[in-house]
Amino acid sequence: MSTTPDGPEAPGDEAPRDAWVSGDTDMDPAAFRAAAHAVVDVMADYLERLESYPVLPPVEPGSLRPLFPSEPPEHAEPLEAILADYRRLVEPNATQWQAPGFLAYFGTTASGPGVLGEMLTAVLGQNPMIWRTSPIGTELEMVVVDWLRQALGLPTGFDGLITDTASTSSLISLAAARQAAGVDASARGLPGRDVPELRVYASAEAHSSIDKALMTLGLGRANLIRIETNDRFEMRVDALEAAIAADRAAGRRPIAIVATVGTTSSTSADPVDRIATVAERDGLWLHVDAAYAGALAIVPSRRPAFAGWERADSIVVNPHKWLFAPLDASLLLTRRMAALRETFSLVPEYLRMLDRETPARDFTDFTPQLGRRFRALKLWVLLRAFGLEGLRRRLERHCALAAMFARWVEETPEWELLAPVPFSTVCFRHVPAWTAETGPDAARLVDEHNEAIMAGVNRQGEAFLSHTRLGGAFTIRLSVGNLRTEERHVARAWELLRQEAARLDRERATVRVEKPAAKKAPAVLD
Amino acid sequence: MSTTPDGPEAPGDEAPRDAWVSGDTDMDPAAFRAAAHAVVDVMADYLERLESYPVLPPVEPGSLRPLFPSEPPEHAEPLEAILADYRRLVEPNATQWQAPGFLAYFGTTASGPGVLGEMLTAVLGQNPMIWRTSPIGTELEMVVVDWLRQALGLPTGFDGLITDTASTSSLISLAAARQAAGVDASARGLPGRDVPELRVYASAEAHSSIDKALMTLGLGRANLIRIETNDRFEMRVDALEAAIAADRAAGRRPIAIVATVGTTSSTSADPVDRIATVAERDGLWLHVDAAYAGALAIVPSRRPAFAGWERADSIVVNPHKWLFAPLDASLLLTRRMAALRETFSLVPEYLRMLDRETPARDFTDFTPQLGRRFRALKLWVLLRAFGLEGLRRRLERHCALAAMFARWVEETPEWELLAPVPFSTVCFRHVPAWTAETGPDAARLVDEHNEAIMAGVNRQGEAFLSHTRLGGAFTIRLSVGNLRTEERHVARAWELLRQEAARLDRERATVRVEKPAAKKAPAVLD
Repeated sequence: MSTTPDGPEAPGDEAPRDAWVSGDTDMDPAAFRAAAHAVVDVMADYLERLESYPVLPPVEPGSLRPLFPSEPPEHAEPLEAILADYRRLVEPNATQWQAPGFLAYFGTTASGPGVLGEMLTAVLGQNPMIWRTSPIGTELEMVVVDWLRQALGLPTGFDGLITDTASTSSLISLAAARQAAGVDASARGLPGRDVPELRVYASAEAHSSIDKALMTLGLGRANLIRIETNDRFEMRVDALEAAIAADRAAGRRPIAIVATVGTTSSTSADPVDRIATVAERDGLWLHVDAAYAGALAIVPSRRPAFAGWERADSIVVNPHKWLFAPLDASLLLTRRMAALRETFSLVPEYLRMLDRETPARDFTDFTPQLGRRFRALKLWVLLRAFGLEGLRRRLERHCALAAMFARWVEETPEWELLAPVPFSTVCFRHVPAWTAETGPDAARLVDEHNEAIMAGVNRQGEAFLSHTRLGGAFTIRLSVGNLRTEERHVARAWELLRQEAARLDRERATVRVEKPAAKKAPAVLD
Repeated sequence: MSTTPDGPEAPGDEAPRDAWVSGDTDMDPAAFRAAAHAVVDVMADYLERLESYPVLPPVEPGSLRPLFPSEPPEHAEPLEAILADYRRLVEPNATQWQAPGFLAYFGTTASGPGVLGEMLTAVLGQNPMIWRTSPIGTELEMVVVDWLRQALGLPTGFDGLITDTASTSSLISLAAARQAAGVDASARGLPGRDVPELRVYASAEAHSSIDKALMTLGLGRANLIRIETNDRFEMRVDALEAAIAADRAAGRRPIAIVATVGTTSSTSADPVDRIATVAERDGLWLHVDAAYAGALAIVPSRRPAFAGWERADSIVVNPHKWLFAPLDASLLLTRRMAALRETFSLVPEYLRMLDRETPARDFTDFTPQLGRRFRALKLWVLLRAFGLEGLRRRLERHCALAAMFARWVEETPEWELLAPVPFSTVCFRHVPAWTAETGPDAARLVDEHNEAIMAGVNRQGEAFLSHTRLGGAFTIRLSVGNLRTEERHVARAWELLRQEAARLDRERATVRVEKPAAKKAPAVLD
């Protein structure tokens, strides 16, 4: 608060160790400006160097922690030291989700515009928990949610909010389903009362976040009934109806169905329209998990894949998956905002009436968390930066790349697709001729062979693929979801896969000639 | 994928509308570099202009949404247009959490170093849900969690993780308490079984996030038993013991106690050490909510305020409150990581054994969410930038400012403190002489008078104060938690408060002379 003239430190004074965060407050704006420009160069350098890092870093668990001091820093350190350590220790030991060779899981691209949005979000430091704590954070979220609703082709009855993850969006939806079942679990709780088992139905291919929601909500993982799928990995509606009927007959209470459009393993789509008919007839909450694939509904010609989701009670689509928003941002749309509020609001009913007089919205009324990031801001920047037209073009390009890769697999002897390719993800494997001679061990040997192919490709660092099991078989998965992925990256992954398969075949042939016992492919934990 | 020579657009071609995000992929790194430098200037300009905005924006609910187009943008827009709208529509309509005059609630400062950390987090785009998806995200979180444990003076038995908010940290803790009660709610659920009501105890002053946790977990808000407090707003241990005994006698099952150090209203501290004795004797989970005040434990001389918290099963401290991290970052420390994993892990036991062979950690095993931001990165930057020594100095300065303000209140006639000031938050009010003459209406009139003072100060825009009720009385709260708050801001708030009180007193005197009926202070929704 007092100013001192500039000048050399008095001899014997300890030099200020924290000059870039001097004083007893924050960095001053000029120091922040200089530091942030330096950080931007680190960020842009990283994007330039992205392809020079192995996509999956070649490190062992436990090898990184010892690289950092075991005790916290007592004194302030210069920015240069921190940024040097960041480049040396952090960047190369990241799994490179941002690299164009990232073809694993479902991609999460921190697009340039999305990152710019995060920068503004960080410095503005909003907490739109209630309207008053961030009028713009609240109302811009309403704007962006409605923009996304329109972009996805959903009717005006849908309202919603932005949460952190699909796990939270689905948890909120199933909590509302629990509340809508009429037992008032939020107020009264489930134990110590005559409440029957409450059942939720999802396909065998539904995401683990649905299990977690039931665990968290006190409904119990055992009460998630996994419905078998057809040979395209889509929920069988006859089996769903039978399961509901059996539960009712046994005195249990069905409360919700979760339909998935774009399952995690094979990206199959449940028949939402027919499931909606069941849900409506039985009075069950219908939640549609379209966390990955839902983004594609911004392309009108693709909307038939989502037929019936407009009948859902709630829908989750993650902009941080296939709409290129940096983690985290999950869109929860619902036709039943009042049910969400009844589940999570702490405001008594007589106070709620005041809301009718003004359009104020307190988003915390709809969520398990109180504090909230201003996630709508980066989505607003991103949507304007790309435009819907630009986003549609990019999603179509991803689908085209996946279709191209699928064609290569189909047209190549000894390679096969293991599932249809409705979106941008391909499930496939290599079945070499020699496996036909191995009799009862064939299935296991094919699995081990494909596990070894994938591990070999991932070890080389240019591409990162993940796997799943379909019908019990080890399945390699290539998912095009990174904004930066181009044809050359998909082509290179295909080249690496064939090279690795050929190398393993050759190795096996050599081993068979030299030693009768087949060498076991190295086990890979994935 | 094909390269075309630079040159003018062919006549008749539509000009590229999205030149700054050209092509079908992301912005190229050079374009990102230029755009990010431009955004940094917007950010730094904002920090320079912070004090020119009203802390609480003078807008009405519903007035902002119409400023934005009701339909989503079809075509890409230039960065300049987006940034101009950001400055024009977003910045001034934010509640200025970052301004030094923000003295409401508990502050959340996005410190310069914290913002730089967020920038790196955004571009690196990690998702440390499992070790493999971000080795550095996982292991740096382990490093930072242990740094914070040491900084807070807690023993090595505490491990933990970074979550989004205190709501989530407390929910996880109480879910683990539910699991530790032995009914295996995660796997089997609570309904349809012979499970008695499960009870959680917290003081009457505990935060609403504890209610929300019980609502979400299916335990029911009614099963949060609010224990009365003494005249210092601290939980009465005798009342706690009586409530537990009564519940046991009635066949209910006590499972957890939540002790708060730094309650939201008055920042009172429950007697954690004595509560820990009760919890240990009764076999109850002890969760300590120190979301705000916990940060002060980095100052060794302040640790007596936290005595006994080392005996807790779980503790929450929010770096995004009083450690100057941008939202969101909540530290959850626990001595019972295994109980958290039993609650939230989907990995069957026989697979867990593999973990013993390597120090891999999959953080999703401990959380309701799957996806996770790499929140440890900004904390690593921030801790190194300030050093513990620098953070201690800043927290002590905040406490000194609050003590100074409290002294002013105490020494000024007609002003009074309504609670002790253990940390950096002051609860007070103005009781003018004229209220003594108003008989049975005095309490209501004092409340309305203070409500009007606060509203008047907030309307002027230089400071933002919030309120609470203590012992039923309307209480103005001044909380020093923003890193940028200096003595002059606290002094100005005090000046504004006295001016507003004097103005209202004068207005009242005039009204009484001219019209016998007292003019009612305007109602303020807060």
